[in-house]
Amino acid sequence: MFRNESEFVRWLRGLVAKDAGPLKLGIGDDAALVEVARGNQAILTTDLSIEGVHFLLRLHPPRAVGHRALARALSDVAAMGGTPRFALVSLAISRRTSRAWVKDFYAGLLGLAARLGVTLIGGDTAVVKGGISADVIAVGEAPRGKALRRSGARPGDQIFVSGKLGLSALGLRLLRSGRAGKAASEKQALFAHLYPEPRCALGRYLSERRLATACIDLSDGLSTDLAHLCEASGVGARVWASRMPLPEVPGESSINSLQLALSGGEDYELLFSVPRGKAARIPHKHRGVTLHRIGEISHSRKLVLIQSDAQSIPLVPAGHDHFRNI
Amino acid sequence: MFRNESEFVRWLRGLVAKDAGPLKLGIGDDAALVEVARGNQAILTTDLSIEGVHFLLRLHPPRAVGHRALARALSDVAAMGGTPRFALVSLAISRRTSRAWVKDFYAGLLGLAARLGVTLIGGDTAVVKGGISADVIAVGEAPRGKALRRSGARPGDQIFVSGKLGLSALGLRLLRSGRAGKAASEKQALFAHLYPEPRCALGRYLSERRLATACIDLSDGLSTDLAHLCEASGVGARVWASRMPLPEVPGESSINSLQLALSGGEDYELLFSVPRGKAARIPHKHRGVTLHRIGEISHSRKLVLIQSDAQSIPLVPAGHDHFRNI
Repeated sequence: MFRNESEFVRWLRGLVAKDAGPLKLGIGDDAALVEVARGNQAILTTDLSIEGVHFLLRLHPPRAVGHRALARALSDVAAMGGTPRFALVSLAISRRTSRAWVKDFYAGLLGLAARLGVTLIGGDTAVVKGGISADVIAVGEAPRGKALRRSGARPGDQIFVSGKLGLSALGLRLLRSGRAGKAASEKQALFAHLYPEPRCALGRYLSERRLATACIDLSDGLSTDLAHLCEASGVGARVWASRMPLPEVPGESSINSLQLALSGGEDYELLFSVPRGKAARIPHKHRGVTLHRIGEISHSRKLVLIQSDAQSIPLVPAGHDHFRNI
Repeated sequence: MFRNESEFVRWLRGLVAKDAGPLKLGIGDDAALVEVARGNQAILTTDLSIEGVHFLLRLHPPRAVGHRALARALSDVAAMGGTPRFALVSLAISRRTSRAWVKDFYAGLLGLAARLGVTLIGGDTAVVKGGISADVIAVGEAPRGKALRRSGARPGDQIFVSGKLGLSALGLRLLRSGRAGKAASEKQALFAHLYPEPRCALGRYLSERRLATACIDLSDGLSTDLAHLCEASGVGARVWASRMPLPEVPGESSINSLQLALSGGEDYELLFSVPRGKAARIPHKHRGVTLHRIGEISHSRKLVLIQSDAQSIPLVPAGHDHFRNI
C-alpha cells in the first residue's frame, strides 16, 4: 500500500490531466476550482459503490469496480442531458486492500473518464476496518433551461428506452454461476455488467433537440425507474411486454428475460418520454445504440404492463431499493 | 427505519429549502442543477466521515456526527476563501441504524447548513453490513482569481492561525475519559470537538482583501497541515512554541497542550501566510475568533519549532495520516 497520504495523492495527481481550460485547480489543494461556461448550469450528482452491496471482490475485477463506480455517476449526468466534465472520488479501502487493487480501480475509472472527457479533480481517502466503499461525484453542465428532468412527461408522450434491458442482470447471473460465457450473447451480457457505458451522447442529443419531455437512467430496473419518472411527472404509463428490447441468450426463457428487464437494474440505459408529434424524429439507432418505443404515458397514475396476450397487469416496482427488507 | 428509498427522499426533501435563486433543481431527480454567479468559479470538495475512523457511535451523538461531517467539507471551502452554497450527502447506514439516528444526523447537518446559507441538493444512500459512513460534498464559489491556495506562501511571509489549537483533540480526550467536564474550559473543548465551526467568514475576509498568500484548514494537526502548505509552496517555516494559542485546561501541562496543538487535528481553524507588509492589517480578532501570528515562512524547506528556551528542533508531521501504519 502507499506509505502515506501524500504519496498516494502524488501518485494520483501523476495520472490525471494538468489544470487547463475550465479546470483551474485540481487534486492536491483543500478543494478543486472549476469554471462553468457562461450560459450553462452545473449538474451535480454522487453515487455510492459499496463492497457487498454494489460489487463483490470475488466477482468484480477492480478495473470493473472503478469503471462502474464512475459510470453510475456519469449515467445521472447523461439522464439530465448534460456533458460530464469532472469527477471527485472518495475511496475508503480496507486494511487488506492491495496497492494493485487500488491501481486497477483507478485504471478502470480513469479509462472511462478519459474516453468521455472527464477529469478527476479531487476526493478523499480513508482506511477502514470494513469493506471497500467508493463515492463518486460527477460534475457536468448543460445550457440553461436545456437539462432534462424526470418531471416533464405528459399523457400521450411515447416512452422510449435505449439499448437492451436486463443485460447487466444477466451478466451478473453468469458471473455468479461461474459459467465461462463463450457465446457472443453471454460475452455481451458480461461486458454490459462489468463495463456499462453511460449514454452521455444520447442524453445530450435528446436535450439539445428538445426531443424528450422527461428522462431517467435505468439504475434500479425499468419497473422502478419508470415509477420514479411517472411519480415525478404526476402521470402513469402503459408499456408493452412484446416491445421490450430483451437480450437473446441461449437457455433463457423469454419470461425470465422479461423479468430481468423489468427488475434487473444497473443497465444504465436511458428511459425517456417524447411528445407523440416528435416520436418519428427518434432514430432507430443513435451512435450504435438502438432506441425502442416501449409504451406511452397515461393520464391515470397507474403503471400497466400489456402482456403478449393483450391482457393488462399492474407493473409493480420490483427493482432494487436499499431500504426494503431492513 | 424508512420503508423505502422514496419515503426517505420525500422526508429529506421536506426538510430542505425549495428550489430558488441559484438552485434550479434540488433533491429528487437524477442530479441537481445549480448556477454559478457570473465571474465566479466553483469550489468543489468532498470529505468522508466513517464510523470507527472519524467518529464512534458510543461517543459521538448523531447530531454531532452530522454537524462534523458537513463542517469538514465546509472548512475546505473556507480555506479557499470561498462562500459555501450547496452540499450533497452520500450516507451508508448499517442495518442496525435507527430512524432516530438518521433524523438526528440530518438535524445536525442541516442546522449548520442553514446557519451558513448552505442548501442540501442531493446525495445517495445505501444500507450496508458494516458501520455507518458519510461522504459530504460541498460546493462553494469565489470570484475568479480570488480563491486562496496552499501554494502561494513566500519566504518572509508571516504565519497566522485562527482560534485555539488542540482544543478538539482535548475534547475528544475528555469524551473518551467520560469525565463530565464541568469547567468552562472543558465544556469549550468538548464543544469544539463535537460542533466545530468552519471559518468561512474569515476565509472570505482574507481572500476578498487579498491578505493571505496561502491558506489551509487544520484538519490533520498543525505539524501536518503546515507541512502540506509548505510543500505546495516550495518553502519551509519557523514557528514559535510560545506563540501557539493553546487551550488552558486545569490539569493539562503546557507540554501536553503543545503536543495536542501540533498533532491533534480536527480543529478546523485556518492556517495562513501573510506578506510581512500586510501582517499589521490582520486584526487580533475577526468576528469573535482570535488570530495569532505563530511564525514565518523560510527559504529553507525545513519545518522548525522554536522552543521556549530558544532552541530549534525539527517540526515533524505527526498529525493523522490514513495510510500510515497499514
